[in-house]
Amino acid sequence: MASEVAEEWAQGTFKLSPNDEDIHTANERRLKELIGETAGKLHTGRSRNDQVVTDLRLWMRQTCSTLSSLLWELIRTMVDRAEAERDVLFPGYTHLQRAQPIRWSHWILSHAVALTRDSERLLEVRKRINVLPLGSGAIAGNPLSVDRELLRAELNFGAITLNSMDATSERDFVAEFLFWASLCMTHLSRMAEDLILYCTKEFSFVQLSDAYSTGSSLMPQKKNPDSLELIRSKAGRVFGRCAGLLMTLKGLPSTYNKDLQEDKEAVFEVSDTMSAVLQVATGVISTLQIHRENMGQALSPDMLATDLAYYLVRKGMPFRQAHEASGKAVFMAETKGVALNELSLQELQTISPLFSGDVSCVWDYGHSVEQYGALGGTARSSVDWQIRQVRALLQTQQA
Amino acid sequence: MASEVAEEWAQGTFKLSPNDEDIHTANERRLKELIGETAGKLHTGRSRNDQVVTDLRLWMRQTCSTLSSLLWELIRTMVDRAEAERDVLFPGYTHLQRAQPIRWSHWILSHAVALTRDSERLLEVRKRINVLPLGSGAIAGNPLSVDRELLRAELNFGAITLNSMDATSERDFVAEFLFWASLCMTHLSRMAEDLILYCTKEFSFVQLSDAYSTGSSLMPQKKNPDSLELIRSKAGRVFGRCAGLLMTLKGLPSTYNKDLQEDKEAVFEVSDTMSAVLQVATGVISTLQIHRENMGQALSPDMLATDLAYYLVRKGMPFRQAHEASGKAVFMAETKGVALNELSLQELQTISPLFSGDVSCVWDYGHSVEQYGALGGTARSSVDWQIRQVRALLQTQQA
Amino acid sequence: MASEVAEEWAQGTFKLSPNDEDIHTANERRLKELIGETAGKLHTGRSRNDQVVTDLRLWMRQTCSTLSSLLWELIRTMVDRAEAERDVLFPGYTHLQRAQPIRWSHWILSHAVALTRDSERLLEVRKRINVLPLGSGAIAGNPLSVDRELLRAELNFGAITLNSMDATSERDFVAEFLFWASLCMTHLSRMAEDLILYCTKEFSFVQLSDAYSTGSSLMPQKKNPDSLELIRSKAGRVFGRCAGLLMTLKGLPSTYNKDLQEDKEAVFEVSDTMSAVLQVATGVISTLQIHRENMGQALSPDMLATDLAYYLVRKGMPFRQAHEASGKAVFMAETKGVALNELSLQELQTISPLFSGDVSCVWDYGHSVEQYGALGGTARSSVDWQIRQVRALLQTQQA
Amino acid sequence: MASEVAEEWAQGTFKLSPNDEDIHTANERRLKELIGETAGKLHTGRSRNDQVVTDLRLWMRQTCSTLSSLLWELIRTMVDRAEAERDVLFPGYTHLQRAQPIRWSHWILSHAVALTRDSERLLEVRKRINVLPLGSGAIAGNPLSVDRELLRAELNFGAITLNSMDATSERDFVAEFLFWASLCMTHLSRMAEDLILYCTKEFSFVQLSDAYSTGSSLMPQKKNPDSLELIRSKAGRVFGRCAGLLMTLKGLPSTYNKDLQEDKEAVFEVSDTMSAVLQVATGVISTLQIHRENMGQALSPDMLATDLAYYLVRKGMPFRQAHEASGKAVFMAETKGVALNELSLQELQTISPLFSGDVSCVWDYGHSVEQYGALGGTARSSVDWQIRQVRALLQTQQA
Repeated sequence: MASEVAEEWAQGTFKLSPNDEDIHTANERRLKELIGETAGKLHTGRSRNDQVVTDLRLWMRQTCSTLSSLLWELIRTMVDRAEAERDVLFPGYTHLQRAQPIRWSHWILSHAVALTRDSERLLEVRKRINVLPLGSGAIAGNPLSVDRELLRAELNFGAITLNSMDATSERDFVAEFLFWASLCMTHLSRMAEDLILYCTKEFSFVQLSDAYSTGSSLMPQKKNPDSLELIRSKAGRVFGRCAGLLMTLKGLPSTYNKDLQEDKEAVFEVSDTMSAVLQVATGVISTLQIHRENMGQALSPDMLATDLAYYLVRKGMPFRQAHEASGKAVFMAETKGVALNELSLQELQTISPLFSGDVSCVWDYGHSVEQYGALGGTARSSVDWQIRQVRALLQTQQA
Repeated sequence: MASEVAEEWAQGTFKLSPNDEDIHTANERRLKELIGETAGKLHTGRSRNDQVVTDLRLWMRQTCSTLSSLLWELIRTMVDRAEAERDVLFPGYTHLQRAQPIRWSHWILSHAVALTRDSERLLEVRKRINVLPLGSGAIAGNPLSVDRELLRAELNFGAITLNSMDATSERDFVAEFLFWASLCMTHLSRMAEDLILYCTKEFSFVQLSDAYSTGSSLMPQKKNPDSLELIRSKAGRVFGRCAGLLMTLKGLPSTYNKDLQEDKEAVFEVSDTMSAVLQVATGVISTLQIHRENMGQALSPDMLATDLAYYLVRKGMPFRQAHEASGKAVFMAETKGVALNELSLQELQTISPLFSGDVSCVWDYGHSVEQYGALGGTARSSVDWQIRQVRALLQTQQA
Repeated sequence: MASEVAEEWAQGTFKLSPNDEDIHTANERRLKELIGETAGKLHTGRSRNDQVVTDLRLWMRQTCSTLSSLLWELIRTMVDRAEAERDVLFPGYTHLQRAQPIRWSHWILSHAVALTRDSERLLEVRKRINVLPLGSGAIAGNPLSVDRELLRAELNFGAITLNSMDATSERDFVAEFLFWASLCMTHLSRMAEDLILYCTKEFSFVQLSDAYSTGSSLMPQKKNPDSLELIRSKAGRVFGRCAGLLMTLKGLPSTYNKDLQEDKEAVFEVSDTMSAVLQVATGVISTLQIHRENMGQALSPDMLATDLAYYLVRKGMPFRQAHEASGKAVFMAETKGVALNELSLQELQTISPLFSGDVSCVWDYGHSVEQYGALGGTARSSVDWQIRQVRALLQTQQA
Repeated sequence: MASEVAEEWAQGTFKLSPNDEDIHTANERRLKELIGETAGKLHTGRSRNDQVVTDLRLWMRQTCSTLSSLLWELIRTMVDRAEAERDVLFPGYTHLQRAQPIRWSHWILSHAVALTRDSERLLEVRKRINVLPLGSGAIAGNPLSVDRELLRAELNFGAITLNSMDATSERDFVAEFLFWASLCMTHLSRMAEDLILYCTKEFSFVQLSDAYSTGSSLMPQKKNPDSLELIRSKAGRVFGRCAGLLMTLKGLPSTYNKDLQEDKEAVFEVSDTMSAVLQVATGVISTLQIHRENMGQALSPDMLATDLAYYLVRKGMPFRQAHEASGKAVFMAETKGVALNELSLQELQTISPLFSGDVSCVWDYGHSVEQYGALGGTARSSVDWQIRQVRALLQTQQA
């Protein structure tokens, strides 16, 4: 008969009565209509305190799976794009100042790699969500020797809670989930910030598809990156929920207090937000158009001064001296009013006799990035390695 | 010669010069004094960006170990106490209202169990701290084919970072650590709140030792629980640091920006606070005096109404009916102006014929707690099981 | 015709079309249906940026008035109660330890006085809300020489914004409102915490009415203070919204960005929460029952040791010496195993010859509180002064 | 003799003893050395609870004055600069997309105006700091009829606290101060963000002076805007302290609890931070170099489409139709592959006969900004009005 009630829920034919306090009393009432007083056995050894937190864990367990899938989809989209466009070079920035030539894919992967940590953390959070509190009663435990291990196995939980007082009133798994979302949003806010900049007229590296931006008939060249701004802004909202819950928990006497009721709205809102944001981010990345020419034109010889120093290092000069020598070349070029790569070999040799004809390679951006072949660098081999690493991670996590 | 510099640091004889920008340039300068220009090779393939974050990870890795030990010491102290005092009963509260008799040890374990989750989480955080960014350069990676796996092995890290842009600018491990501390402090604030209440004249369940409270010559009976109030208050400070860092990270352009410099003070302050708070908490728990008599006297028959219902359930009555029957007994006792356990068997039998002589057991508090023998409950066997579980956890984590 | 559209809104007969982007385009569309192309003039010199923020300010201005009224109602309820029950004494606590006898009204007023600051602050926030941004356009201002002072007067604002870029993108007034609510909730959370304690079996100073607590048929003596727990918990939620908005604003480029859209949900949720919480708090206070006897019985002679010192100060002894003398009396009583007020005059005189027959007054709790007659103290005259002060404040603020 | 002690403090000759618990007992001890037992009268009618909070208010009152001055100095610097450079035009952005030509001074003033609200708020916070709690004792008030109004006048406070329980334990003024700083930092973080963007190679509108940026001998063109990044980052730290204090206050039982001790470090750190940040911001603004040519070159005819619509509005066309007509012109220009201002009068007249020879004015950027003459707009007259308004405000606030 319990399965009949379940069927009614599944069919959407279950009729709630105004007197039903919550889902549990509704089910018991309905069962009573079907089978009489025996339905009164349903609540045996249970309490709202352990039921409500079991419900929440069931719901969140499912949510974690959904969000994991959406996160994997986003990472996969990014990695695919990184693979496809790995020959595009553009400036890498530190302090928003042009620093060194890097691969566009290296930038994509820098954000994808951050998201793999979110994915790893989400699995850990899920592990702690997936612990069964049922059988804890209101505070003291279950008085009827219920077999909690059996309940666990039937409900497919990974473990049972250890202490009934803690089980009914701890909300670590909620706080952890909210913080997980906050940190993930921080990552997405940083990626959004980068892309908003790259969308400006001044950078002009990328262009959002119409579905993810808002244009104006008057100013067709002005495409407001609304989707990215919304992603960036949600970092605040999500963290606000995390901050709110922790403040609610602070200094609360142990065991169940009504204050804990604040948990659910926070979880629901954050789940919805994360689900939407992850999908929008996937859409943005998969439809983004890049302007290769602008990217290339943004590279300039002055970004190669470090490489020039390493040229000398490879010839045997200690780094500090090489750094100085390169600085002198920069100064010489500036003084002469020419670009760094326009200094003649003779001129360079007045700085160090180690300069020879092969210095011309330094001025090739493609050659530049290829130097960074150590693991994690921007050389093609290293970018390929990153792609393989992230794909392997995804496979492991999905297992 | 590098070992000579290390020796100077160890001996405290290393002399800093006003021109030393940071620890790395100081070491290079000193080495240069000892071996000349070759010292200039020290910085080869490095950048301040990857060095600074490597330093921070080294420091935090050590801190995590220290804090883990302090946390284990606290948990052990609690478990030992729980084992020693497991025959003491007192009221369990929900909504700060007396609910059911429980073991004092069950209360201790409810907080100890929460702390085992903190311990588990700290190991996870440490795992993500223990990842080596060295070899990421300033942004593009290392141009000299450094063997990062070798560096990792030599510095005893668990893994290497995957992407140089991410490696030099992600501070997930800092945010995670600060949140770990925040959640742990939330637990300690809740335990502190309970104990502050139990220290009041009104509850009088426990008494802090003089070392952890402040008395007054004028009011010797007034012992201010300063240590517990400080523990409770630090939850705010620690979370403030977490909130601050996340806000700093929000919307930051990718790669290194000076904003990231905010990470260190937050980590140092929170580490110091956690270290102090964990030690104070251990001191409080180990020196706490309990007032068994007051605890016992706080139990009253009205806390056994639920047990009375379960008495009938055990005789075969569905729970809802048993609940109603028990409610009738409560009402009858109230009407007659007697305690619930003063109703005669005849009176009880007017409510249900299932009541018989053995109902007298219901009124025994020791008998009451023993009913909650399902795992996680307050029966002695279950409390012993909890103690074994927590001890086993500690052993696993320390391994 | 504009008034006809207004009438349709008022009557609830305005029909929204799926193509209406927002309230402004809906109105223009409807007006066009009524009067034709001339309706196209409606948007002249306006932009969504300045309209939306004007709407929000209009809405919040009204909300502030509503919340002010609810806050005044709560304060008034508290002051009335303080006046009615000002002869009830009970223990004042510091560190949750019994410290000195105080008037129950003094406790009520301590919370009412805190709320008057919230009321003062709300008026200041309202003043900054009540500034008109209309006429700022999207960013550069209004190109048609609109008379913004006239608009201000017609819409009854207190001032106009000074700079069009700032006007369309600053959300100080939202942040201020959210912080106002957060601080007010902190006050209410502290009052709720006190009352939750006073509701415990252990304190038993007050009893919530049934409307504001949840009972159980099984445990009629257990009244869960749900209303107070909800008030306490909402402090977290409200502050979370404040934290969220500030994080969203941090580092945002100037002028309008879509991120600002986060403002409205925060304002609406916090307004609803504050409205509900203030009304519940008023209900709790007005229906609360106090247990005078329990309050009186919680007073004990040891709470009068400070007064004993002041007895000697009044006889001319410097405070430090008087403090020491009183400490000796406390020690003597403890040693003899009697209450402080059971020491004989002779015994006291062995400590100081300044003790004489009038020392018996010290042991009278009513006499004790009457000593604290300086403004702000717990003497009846001072409590009356407080009541007059708060009432005068309310009158000023309502003016 | 009290003045002698004061003199010792002023001279720096006061010697602290290891037994001095705090400043108050140190003073009393010293006074006792000078005048004997009568010094014991010093603490009469006082308690640490009211003394400590009085000290904090005295300190913060002074801090507010200092910070106000620094804030005024910053605003003044901005306004002076706005006045001097008011003929410089550059693009105004919304969503970081170029929107309309504005005056550079209009941008400066948009941030200066935001800071005037901080200045106004600081005065309000100071007003609530400047309330005297002395005479509140530990909880119940002062038992010796101290004249608190006299104390107030002597210590130059604006008012006295109303209730002794509230006075010793409320920290609203601390929370308000921390929030004031948080909101002010949010403003400065937004200004810093703008300037960091304007400093990029891509925007190249401004250049930080060497004192406020960090260069590199290798990459002299790369000037890291460290000062601005630090300003931006401090918004997080400061808000973290605000969040921390509010969490500490949440749910705290009333009157003094040791938890309140968290207030001072938060105030000290935030005061120091604000003082430094305001001075750095003043330095940045006063030494900033602007690149007028780059600013001018960033303007383009497509930013004038809105102005083109208003041209038609001025000729009598309803705004919606004018908007459409302008859109058609934009489309025509795009189709023909010419800039908007390169459409001939004939071509424009195919869209609307209202176009005539004077349309050429529309293409003048100087003419464009002058249209925005309504108060708060970017026309020169309006910018001058803003300057006068802000200066008048400063004068009022300094009075």
